[in-house]
Amino acid sequence: METTQNSAADLSRLIRPRSIALVGASDREGSIGERTLTNLVTHSSFDGEVYLVNPSKSEIRGQRCWPSVASLPATPDVAVVAVPASGVLTVIEECAARGVAFAVILSSGFGEAGAEGEREQQRMKEIAERGGLRLYGPNCPGLTNVNGRLGLTFSPSFPHDLTPGPIGLATQGGGLGRNVMQAMERGIGIGLWASTGNEVDLQVADFIHYMAEAPDIKVIVTLLEGIKDGPKFVAAVQRAAANGKPVIGLKVGKSEYGRRAAQSHTASLTGSAEVNSAVFRQFGVIEVDDIDELVDTAWLFARAMPGAQDALGIYCSSGGTAALTADAVGSAGLTLAAFTPETTEVLRAKLPAYAAIGNPVDTTAMVLSDKTVVETTLGCVANDPNLALTIVPIALDYGETTTRLADNIINAQKGCAAPIVPIWMSDRLGEGYQKLVAAGFAPPHSVGKAISAIGRWVEYGRWQRANTGAEPRVLPPLAAPLGDGATRSLSEAQAKARLREAGIALLPHGLARSAEEARALADGMGYPVVAKIASEQIVHKSDIGGVQVGLQDGAQVEAAWREIMASVLKHQPGATIDGLLIEKMAPRGGVELMIGVTRDPVFGHVMTFGLGGIYVEIFRDVTRRLLPIGARDAAAMVREMRSFALLDGARGRPKADVAAVEALLVRVSDFVARHADRLEEMDLNPVWVGAAGEGAMPLDAVIVERTGTPA
Amino acid sequence: METTQNSAADLSRLIRPRSIALVGASDREGSIGERTLTNLVTHSSFDGEVYLVNPSKSEIRGQRCWPSVASLPATPDVAVVAVPASGVLTVIEECAARGVAFAVILSSGFGEAGAEGEREQQRMKEIAERGGLRLYGPNCPGLTNVNGRLGLTFSPSFPHDLTPGPIGLATQGGGLGRNVMQAMERGIGIGLWASTGNEVDLQVADFIHYMAEAPDIKVIVTLLEGIKDGPKFVAAVQRAAANGKPVIGLKVGKSEYGRRAAQSHTASLTGSAEVNSAVFRQFGVIEVDDIDELVDTAWLFARAMPGAQDALGIYCSSGGTAALTADAVGSAGLTLAAFTPETTEVLRAKLPAYAAIGNPVDTTAMVLSDKTVVETTLGCVANDPNLALTIVPIALDYGETTTRLADNIINAQKGCAAPIVPIWMSDRLGEGYQKLVAAGFAPPHSVGKAISAIGRWVEYGRWQRANTGAEPRVLPPLAAPLGDGATRSLSEAQAKARLREAGIALLPHGLARSAEEARALADGMGYPVVAKIASEQIVHKSDIGGVQVGLQDGAQVEAAWREIMASVLKHQPGATIDGLLIEKMAPRGGVELMIGVTRDPVFGHVMTFGLGGIYVEIFRDVTRRLLPIGARDAAAMVREMRSFALLDGARGRPKADVAAVEALLVRVSDFVARHADRLEEMDLNPVWVGAAGEGAMPLDAVIVERTGTPA
Repeated sequence: METTQNSAADLSRLIRPRSIALVGASDREGSIGERTLTNLVTHSSFDGEVYLVNPSKSEIRGQRCWPSVASLPATPDVAVVAVPASGVLTVIEECAARGVAFAVILSSGFGEAGAEGEREQQRMKEIAERGGLRLYGPNCPGLTNVNGRLGLTFSPSFPHDLTPGPIGLATQGGGLGRNVMQAMERGIGIGLWASTGNEVDLQVADFIHYMAEAPDIKVIVTLLEGIKDGPKFVAAVQRAAANGKPVIGLKVGKSEYGRRAAQSHTASLTGSAEVNSAVFRQFGVIEVDDIDELVDTAWLFARAMPGAQDALGIYCSSGGTAALTADAVGSAGLTLAAFTPETTEVLRAKLPAYAAIGNPVDTTAMVLSDKTVVETTLGCVANDPNLALTIVPIALDYGETTTRLADNIINAQKGCAAPIVPIWMSDRLGEGYQKLVAAGFAPPHSVGKAISAIGRWVEYGRWQRANTGAEPRVLPPLAAPLGDGATRSLSEAQAKARLREAGIALLPHGLARSAEEARALADGMGYPVVAKIASEQIVHKSDIGGVQVGLQDGAQVEAAWREIMASVLKHQPGATIDGLLIEKMAPRGGVELMIGVTRDPVFGHVMTFGLGGIYVEIFRDVTRRLLPIGARDAAAMVREMRSFALLDGARGRPKADVAAVEALLVRVSDFVARHADRLEEMDLNPVWVGAAGEGAMPLDAVIVERTGTPA
Repeated sequence: METTQNSAADLSRLIRPRSIALVGASDREGSIGERTLTNLVTHSSFDGEVYLVNPSKSEIRGQRCWPSVASLPATPDVAVVAVPASGVLTVIEECAARGVAFAVILSSGFGEAGAEGEREQQRMKEIAERGGLRLYGPNCPGLTNVNGRLGLTFSPSFPHDLTPGPIGLATQGGGLGRNVMQAMERGIGIGLWASTGNEVDLQVADFIHYMAEAPDIKVIVTLLEGIKDGPKFVAAVQRAAANGKPVIGLKVGKSEYGRRAAQSHTASLTGSAEVNSAVFRQFGVIEVDDIDELVDTAWLFARAMPGAQDALGIYCSSGGTAALTADAVGSAGLTLAAFTPETTEVLRAKLPAYAAIGNPVDTTAMVLSDKTVVETTLGCVANDPNLALTIVPIALDYGETTTRLADNIINAQKGCAAPIVPIWMSDRLGEGYQKLVAAGFAPPHSVGKAISAIGRWVEYGRWQRANTGAEPRVLPPLAAPLGDGATRSLSEAQAKARLREAGIALLPHGLARSAEEARALADGMGYPVVAKIASEQIVHKSDIGGVQVGLQDGAQVEAAWREIMASVLKHQPGATIDGLLIEKMAPRGGVELMIGVTRDPVFGHVMTFGLGGIYVEIFRDVTRRLLPIGARDAAAMVREMRSFALLDGARGRPKADVAAVEALLVRVSDFVARHADRLEEMDLNPVWVGAAGEGAMPLDAVIVERTGTPA
């Protein structure tokens, strides 16, 4: 992880520059310089100064050319660099010297092109940093500012991109971002697209931060191959959340194949998919798995933010489609609303006796014969105060009938704050579809896609309500890497001593240096006890006969000493032995949990908590948080376990001491925060929790620290 | 469950009739009779005899009208009934009397319209059965035979439906089926659509059976709200599997909302979603959750059946899109192939140095400048013998470049048996898209949808290989419902006696009628023992203090007698007590499993098997099979447990006696088969399994039987 102040750059002069230099301007048809010039001059409506820079031309398309950035009559806010890779460094040097604020480097052939390119890129960065010049790119399609109608891009698609809108799009690579832009075909307006390429300086997070503050952006969408600076990303999405703007993220790298492909594509450190998803969830970033999901979800948020209601309505003219949609609502864990008596009354009066007037509403094929039926009922359903929104699945395009339905939807929406969400399921995209698109409905194309977007919308509303007033998180200071990166494992006794200092409850235990001492310790704490070999060098104690449990008296303890020492000597003859750790057995009953802490290279210390024992690896019933956490997080983590019912008195079991588990999670987090500079890994497994009042205690503890002194 | 012979009707004269009567033929514009007439006479190419029946007309459109079915000069194979509900019974009577083979009843107003309609429908059924007339409908849009170009339907869409093709579609309701038909817009040909409506006689299963034998149908698609006759459905899909034809099913009713909506729509018994999915899986029916998934999956099968390879290729010109697709492949548990050295050599020679030539292939944006790059490399990848198919995600429509890519795909496919699967991700449906559609590629619209279809395709290939040569299943004979449907629970001792008779191993146990007898029994089997109250009336023994475990000697056994009897007397004073069941404790260690059997109202006896103990309800790590099962099913069931690793030696545990578990499953199945007429429910939980050689034994047993004599 690079050191950072977590502060985002001020991008206002990049997004709304007063003057721009195009370095490498050209009139050679199809060249990068020519295409960029055309976008900037012909298709943009930029009213500031544009300077063309090209040493071999005196003018292009009737506009004066300057030989260099140095020679410009004034200092531009932004230099767009469209020269071959070999000339980029010289341009960057000139820009830095001249005091240009931002350089947008369209050129390829740097970090993505191997080791030499990577070195060039680093030199570029150093030059820029010294001169206070901020860099965008390289290896990127540029910046597409639709709401400001300014194209700092060579893309020939720019003139097709000019549907303004409330969505901000921040991507690394260009291809997938371009796909999102083509959602404009469905009437979706993307106001600003930043594609940060190799991210030598400015990152996706800087643009998320900018969009969080930009008044014309309501919803932020991001496509990520890797996150360069985790804390900066977290700070940016926290800013978005504080300003009430949802961030929708698609992160490539959920599987090994994806990780490898993304690394070869952008040389990004993709990080752990589990940690990434946990961080997204923790900070309210709405994670999606596919581009079409991202588009459907973003547009739903752009149309309306979730409010106080969670329950949905379904309005349909086909019984099968109504059932399919109701099914999807139920399977997604969402709720169908109960209509108010007023709505029910209207439906009863207007629909035929054989129609379904509950929720889902099935008007039946009466819509074919009675042309007023939708008009007189849909608005009433959509306005029902019990509904968060109304889904109108349209299974087929029946020509005139369906066009009329589209008109009815458009009209009903006019008098209604809660969104009506038509789903256009047919491959036939007739007049009704085109009308819905023109009216800004951007219909999802399948029930599944619509429900998945709606589910995320509802869930975000819940997240917002649960996290209102959350303090901005102060991340632990990041340590400079220590020496050679070497680590060491503490012995269990050492680890437990640290935990005890941190106020964490443990079972009575002590380190015995002889069989007699072991017996005396055990007599003192009472039986039964456990005996475990104590050695920094032995982590997997059970595997070499280093543990005996259920020792019932002093004689058994002395025998255990002999047997364990013999076994350890046999299996690991050179190990330095501190003695035997004697510990009182945990009471019978209780549940085994686990708490782990790892240092994620992108985000920092992450806690994993969940069901322990032999089920950890099978059911992976765990939840994660970036540290530090507070009481609210701890309470949420416990309740996120699928097996929370086990703690909550399922199947006649006593209720477990959940409060003690929550307190333990916070104490562990505090412990990690205090030792963040050295702590590499921590594994408390099992953690025993008894019935209410009996407490929660780690039974085993592994702590791995970095050694050495800061480099 | 209705009694049935499981035999499907011979539908050849319905699908390919020699003569048809249209009862209710009309020339009143827009009426059902007029629309059906137009489809039958104008849009069909039927060369048999068509008789128009209408008592109030002498001719319609120049064709003679007959006053009744009775008056017809010859007996038609099929009567299409397009008269109002009130006239249907008379027509059916005439048809039955005349010896018509099939009646297609388009009219509504029967079972779906309340109790009176349901009674009419039953009368219709009785009349038809007596006359040997088979009924299709009522309340249906009719039968659309595209490959035979014959429309026995009133749908004005029929003339748009005439893209012949290899898919057979069997649905109940019309709306969702019509949606599938509109996939013809994407070039997908559906050869035959049966929409069986209220299924008073012919069911979806009859049409699946027909399609399984029809030479022009390669892939069968079904949309189900409920399954009327489970065994008939199973027989039909087995026939399809035997003939190598995949059946793709979407069953509404996965959630409570969906179940309720489907019931109100079709009055179908939707059955249990879990059982339905289990039966689908068991018999190779490919279950999908949404219509678009169904279409994408069906078309992939229609293009090519899975072969010996499972591994996939990805070919792309955008690194981000390649990574996203690779990610989806990995997340779905699918495999990317390793290319042969020959393929790698071609890619190395033809692609630039910075391209990715592994799998995924990323040609890079070179495709924009070098117009031959796809042409010279895609065919080589697609033909690589290590690949099952090649995915070509197309993130955006770049006009000419993308059209060229479409041409390249079409050409490459010509020389290649394995399918190339283009994914058209953009909302812009330009020329390239239209070319792919025209060439029969029917591109899926998102990476997720494509991968989900491909995953099902690969999985079906595996299912086929694993189930080659499977004997057709002989279902247990179905018992006529017994008397008043009353049931009784056996006591644990009775249940265990039954199991023992069936050759199922149990721990030593015995029924004690006094404290002394209990002690003597325990002394005989050795300590520790468990004591449990024995009473038919007490099922939840623990809840009323009816169980004591870990009794170490005779004194403890006698004390347990006193305490249990006192507690039971207090909590359930009237219960008839048989005594105490004394049972040896299971050895320590081992894993707790569970086996349950229920009688599903649609399919019959279903076994549930999985992890037992307190985790059953939390993780639901269970698998299900329709009974009976054989050794192969049993082996598969054990391995389908997520926690199979627990049995297979995970985390240093001893390997469990898996063979004993498998044998136990088959013995339980045999036991159920022998008692199928009375057995209502069975619950063996926990079932203890020890280390290899130690066996697997039910520790507790509940059996519920039907009482009474057959009605």
